[in-house]
Amino acid sequence: MIPSIEWIAEKNIVKMIDQTQLPGKLVFLEFTTFQEVATSIKVMNIRGAPAIGVAAAMGMALATIEFQKLPYNDFVQQMNHAAKIITATRPTAVNLFWAVDRIQKLIQRSGQDVVKISEIIIKEAQTMWQEDIDTNRKMGMHGASLLEEGDTVLTHCNAGSLATVLYGTALAPIRWAIEEEGKKIQVIADETRPRLQGARLTAWELQYDKIPVKVESDNAAGLMMRLGKIQKVIVGADRIVRDTVFNKIGTYMVAMAAKYHNIPMYVVAPRSTLSMNETEKDVIIEQRDGQFEVGQIMGRIKTPIVPEGVECINYAFDGTPMELITAIITEDGVFTPEELVKKYQ
Amino acid sequence: MIPSIEWIAEKNIVKMIDQTQLPGKLVFLEFTTFQEVATSIKVMNIRGAPAIGVAAAMGMALATIEFQKLPYNDFVQQMNHAAKIITATRPTAVNLFWAVDRIQKLIQRSGQDVVKISEIIIKEAQTMWQEDIDTNRKMGMHGASLLEEGDTVLTHCNAGSLATVLYGTALAPIRWAIEEEGKKIQVIADETRPRLQGARLTAWELQYDKIPVKVESDNAAGLMMRLGKIQKVIVGADRIVRDTVFNKIGTYMVAMAAKYHNIPMYVVAPRSTLSMNETEKDVIIEQRDGQFEVGQIMGRIKTPIVPEGVECINYAFDGTPMELITAIITEDGVFTPEELVKKYQ
Repeated sequence: MIPSIEWIAEKNIVKMIDQTQLPGKLVFLEFTTFQEVATSIKVMNIRGAPAIGVAAAMGMALATIEFQKLPYNDFVQQMNHAAKIITATRPTAVNLFWAVDRIQKLIQRSGQDVVKISEIIIKEAQTMWQEDIDTNRKMGMHGASLLEEGDTVLTHCNAGSLATVLYGTALAPIRWAIEEEGKKIQVIADETRPRLQGARLTAWELQYDKIPVKVESDNAAGLMMRLGKIQKVIVGADRIVRDTVFNKIGTYMVAMAAKYHNIPMYVVAPRSTLSMNETEKDVIIEQRDGQFEVGQIMGRIKTPIVPEGVECINYAFDGTPMELITAIITEDGVFTPEELVKKYQ
Repeated sequence: MIPSIEWIAEKNIVKMIDQTQLPGKLVFLEFTTFQEVATSIKVMNIRGAPAIGVAAAMGMALATIEFQKLPYNDFVQQMNHAAKIITATRPTAVNLFWAVDRIQKLIQRSGQDVVKISEIIIKEAQTMWQEDIDTNRKMGMHGASLLEEGDTVLTHCNAGSLATVLYGTALAPIRWAIEEEGKKIQVIADETRPRLQGARLTAWELQYDKIPVKVESDNAAGLMMRLGKIQKVIVGADRIVRDTVFNKIGTYMVAMAAKYHNIPMYVVAPRSTLSMNETEKDVIIEQRDGQFEVGQIMGRIKTPIVPEGVECINYAFDGTPMELITAIITEDGVFTPEELVKKYQ
């Protein structure tokens, strides 16, 4: 396992895996400025809500170093500017705002000695890094209790180590069951059109860690269930509201298929994903460039697969109603949908 | 609408659309020998069960011209050889065997004048061509009664004009409703991984005929149903047994989603697709080269989307149980699954 992102303390730099080059090449990027980190979020060198939250915090930490020689008022002004640049990279990513806000509030509480503030913020970014790992390992421990020796687990998209700092959300119970409990578990990764995160990233990180994994077209999940080749489904979540789990497009179809086959459907997501005051109708689903992502397969193909002039529908996420969800796993434990609402409302 | 294949009587040649070049280019191929036709089936210049049946018959017709100068016994020997070459191109395609068999039996019944036999066989191939169109139009007429003004119909894979001689199976009711009944109908085509027939072929032929069509990743069908954007699902079939409809991988997931949303799920397939003495367990589903079709997206991509050494699962078809099917449309009418068994058993 390799962290998706790290603070290299000796050099005060940010190091991350360039996920756009996976699975072909394992390339590391090193950044010394917040602008570079902002760009890396924008072009998706790093992705996954928890990972980009930590990236944003580390970008803010780099900014404190850059502006360390300014008088306090100018420093604050520059930090506000950096915060804007960073949060503008992916305006729908809640974690980005949460992370930048946490750093900004700490700056406000840390006196007016700019060099000291910088030290505090660098330490905070590292704390957030460690917190993410701790949270994921707790979810892994709770979720592993649901897995049985010999299970094949279907997962959709990448809610793995690469989407977090380390260890992952959906993949955390699988890692814990194998590494801490010695269970034999194998994984089937949906390729996850249109962006192919399952084929590219989930398969890569599991293979890297020697966890048995096969890839299938998203279309094949139903047949694989019918053939008895899948015992559990585990996915992550982008946002969980009272009645619905929002996650990568396609999760809903997997959930309907799991229900039809009486296969447990688990969602692994930290508390930061919960938004218990909202319901399905409060959430507007982001639509992305269908011609590029669907029609040109992310620019990876010479001739588009769709005739010129035909529109491609491209919603990024879908919502799965709670009646299709067996349980949600947070860092606090395993909850049925009813228990989740009671616990966190 | 352009026929996928035609017999050009003035020149005694076979002309077909090169479907491997769609949707980028509309290229026609012209063949004078059965070997060329066999190759075109093998490399999928032409595909779709009804279309390759007719292609096989036309290939046999070309062979009769090639061997017209041989004595009768040598002619029969050469025709047996041609039959073997043609049926070996796609050994699981039932229609191929059916078509070649029909030609071979007619040769046996047509005396020993080789030139006259050739004339009979050329005519027979043209008859089979016309029969396919007639069958499809009948299915279109029956199926159109199920469509309402303003419907958006989801279809999976390509069971259109390109998969037949003309008009299609799944797309026939849509064409009839629009062209003969003046209804306003639009289509959503699943891209249909791994071979992308929906994005490439269904979208192309509907756009060519000015029928409104959009493409979506297969993953999006569930959300589109939940958003109320799909009123009917219509698909074709590769084989229909007593309890199950076998069709392109992914049909089963669409059917489960349709059931969950109470959206009608229709299957359009000619009698030749029915195999009422079999059940689900009698059918072994073909597995294809996953590394090529899934991992390399049919060779259309430079860097594979799956890490080297990770296996890709790749079943070509899946089976949808009859309880998920609202009705099956054949050239004889519209049937519930129970009625279908009664009618054709």
